Amino acid sequence: MDDLRLIKLQEALDKLHSRWRPLIRTERVKLIEALGRVLGVDVESPMDLPPFHRSAVDGYAVKAEDTFNAGEENPVELRLAFKVPIGTLPKQVLNKGECAYVSTGSLLPPGSDAVVMLEYTHVEDGKVKVYRSVTPGENMVRKGADVKKGSRILRKGVKLTPRRLGLLASIGLAEVEVFVKPRVAVISTGPELVEPGEHLVEGKIYDVNTTTLLSMAIEAGAEAKALGIVPDNLEELVEKIKEALQSFDLVLVSGGTSKGEVDLLPRAIASLSGAVMVAQGLAIKPGKPTLIALVEDKPIIGLPGNPTSAMLVFHVLVKPLIQEMAESSKEERTSFIEAKASVKIFSAKGRREFKFMKLEVKDGQLYAYPLPTGSEAVTTYASADGFIEIPEEVEFVEEGEKLLVKLLR
Amino acid sequence: MDDLRLIKLQEALDKLHSRWRPLIRTERVKLIEALGRVLGVDVESPMDLPPFHRSAVDGYAVKAEDTFNAGEENPVELRLAFKVPIGTLPKQVLNKGECAYVSTGSLLPPGSDAVVMLEYTHVEDGKVKVYRSVTPGENMVRKGADVKKGSRILRKGVKLTPRRLGLLASIGLAEVEVFVKPRVAVISTGPELVEPGEHLVEGKIYDVNTTTLLSMAIEAGAEAKALGIVPDNLEELVEKIKEALQSFDLVLVSGGTSKGEVDLLPRAIASLSGAVMVAQGLAIKPGKPTLIALVEDKPIIGLPGNPTSAMLVFHVLVKPLIQEMAESSKEERTSFIEAKASVKIFSAKGRREFKFMKLEVKDGQLYAYPLPTGSEAVTTYASADGFIEIPEEVEFVEEGEKLLVKLLR
Repeated sequence: MDDLRLIKLQEALDKLHSRWRPLIRTERVKLIEALGRVLGVDVESPMDLPPFHRSAVDGYAVKAEDTFNAGEENPVELRLAFKVPIGTLPKQVLNKGECAYVSTGSLLPPGSDAVVMLEYTHVEDGKVKVYRSVTPGENMVRKGADVKKGSRILRKGVKLTPRRLGLLASIGLAEVEVFVKPRVAVISTGPELVEPGEHLVEGKIYDVNTTTLLSMAIEAGAEAKALGIVPDNLEELVEKIKEALQSFDLVLVSGGTSKGEVDLLPRAIASLSGAVMVAQGLAIKPGKPTLIALVEDKPIIGLPGNPTSAMLVFHVLVKPLIQEMAESSKEERTSFIEAKASVKIFSAKGRREFKFMKLEVKDGQLYAYPLPTGSEAVTTYASADGFIEIPEEVEFVEEGEKLLVKLLR
Repeated sequence: MDDLRLIKLQEALDKLHSRWRPLIRTERVKLIEALGRVLGVDVESPMDLPPFHRSAVDGYAVKAEDTFNAGEENPVELRLAFKVPIGTLPKQVLNKGECAYVSTGSLLPPGSDAVVMLEYTHVEDGKVKVYRSVTPGENMVRKGADVKKGSRILRKGVKLTPRRLGLLASIGLAEVEVFVKPRVAVISTGPELVEPGEHLVEGKIYDVNTTTLLSMAIEAGAEAKALGIVPDNLEELVEKIKEALQSFDLVLVSGGTSKGEVDLLPRAIASLSGAVMVAQGLAIKPGKPTLIALVEDKPIIGLPGNPTSAMLVFHVLVKPLIQEMAESSKEERTSFIEAKASVKIFSAKGRREFKFMKLEVKDGQLYAYPLPTGSEAVTTYASADGFIEIPEEVEFVEEGEKLLVKLLR
């Protein structure tokens, strides 16, 4: 592949986006099945939280002004008029000189405006002695203090964590609108590949990419399915891709992407009607043979056969696409951590280089050191904490320089 | 509840562990269904990786010594004896003076010990001119260089990420032994609780704990099920707990834990045959009314009704128990981040205090500031990044002091 014809990653993405918009759909699911899903609508609260003035302690609801003269030595005596058990409505209005027993969470009776804690009271003959004064609003939570009716409590695009689901439960939602997961098909190609579990003939290796790409797609928020291995047959690959285009929104094909003698994918794509080659060869390292095509508004991404390179291309190209198709909000898509370069790091000029990094704390300072490249070991990748991007025009990073490490999980 | 009778969290856990060991079982699942599961066995590789000497480039397999005199000006000429397409076996042994065409990933023919890259060669009349010398081992990956047959590649107890699943695929595993997920039942109690989706009567609130505890248990690695709300009825609660003990390994009951008038859980537990109360009241804040009991070797945890407190108790007590029952390795259980206290933080003496914190970067330094407590707002918790623990004997943390923040996700 001619290096001069490689196009920059951002340029390829811009080109893709100028021709393609992901199809966005939402669906309604039960609250508890929404764990990990992406919220499909802005949610406004249909109610105040708390929904009523509630007691924050166990004690007596009072009119604060009735207690203004109370003290250790001179308690104020109030008549115990009624009780408000938690979850019930007060039977009557609180009058001057009266108090009502309340628990934490009880609705405060009309007429009351504060609560005296149990420990500052003493009951005798239906009378409650109050040994400490309270100010209006003390020991209670006002209606709407936490959430005001009509206010937006969650934005479209956030991932539904247990805490956010709790927030939705608190305003009474049993179901929630979430974005439909993009459907991703995963195909491996290569005459050398054998499916795990089968007998390994000498000269062949087990297919790793189906497993990693499938599970990474699931982690990124997709519904993903493996369509198997295509060994070395153009017709078979074309059929497999056609099958994928029928039921999936995005097709991943690893292997067979470069222009060598056994490389099938560009030929397969050329033979599909309505296919547009968006990019063939990217100025990134690793990942040069990466391919982006569009068929009937569905992207097909060709990834390198090398498992480590394929995983990296997944992280820098495929994962953002899946997240975009899943409509997850940009703020939530990636997490970075700042670390110092532990050594000087060299980079390929003219290509955006990605390097797997391991993080280590030394003297309270976070350092990142590059993992050896060149080897195609799956084990290298398995021990990485994240990766860095070195732009096309940068040839090296100095030791001690600040790095933004994109975390792998 | 008398503060003097509160026991320390660690003491309660020790007491629990002196009487109880989680039941550990494993099951075999398909590789791709093992995403996120906990590996149940140490895995040793049954094979070398790569399984054969393989070429790391496209080029010609040679005997290195045949190329020792090669240079830009005086190429060495070798006879192109055969090709080794990727995934196939070489037809013959490579002899002195010969070379064989290989692709990246091809098995190196016996007799060869290095590969010359395509760009340093020129083919003419069945002869290959080699313009650069190679040393033995150059441009090839030796059999077993990545993984040696018999070496341990993954330890029991690690969580199966896409990368680790890829590692298992690379040694040919189609299935993997994982620990069975602990089964967790979730019950909410409280006369004030209404199920989300139902009509909210004045004075009542929606049940938040079922949703948050259920989804947190799932995230912690459990198979969890909600058994619903028990309003205010001892018999009903006893029946519900008995039902839970039949099919689940751990029972979570929120609400009804303190000794007040509407608090049912201690009475329910007392009425179960074979029940042992391990701890009733912990010296933690929030979470004082937390309860730990054992019935027929199954723990029952009583959590505060207050959603924020319940979530915190889940993080400090329930999550570690679930992770222990799921046998996930200790190293993977929690992630901490170091940050500076943004303000002086006061703590309750005699109780281990947990405070929700928000993280913020200021001038390249990570700061943590405490979120307001006292309010029982679900929204407070929803904006927290993590929490800190302040030990029983510590009364305050100075501004600028280093804090270990336990991350919430």
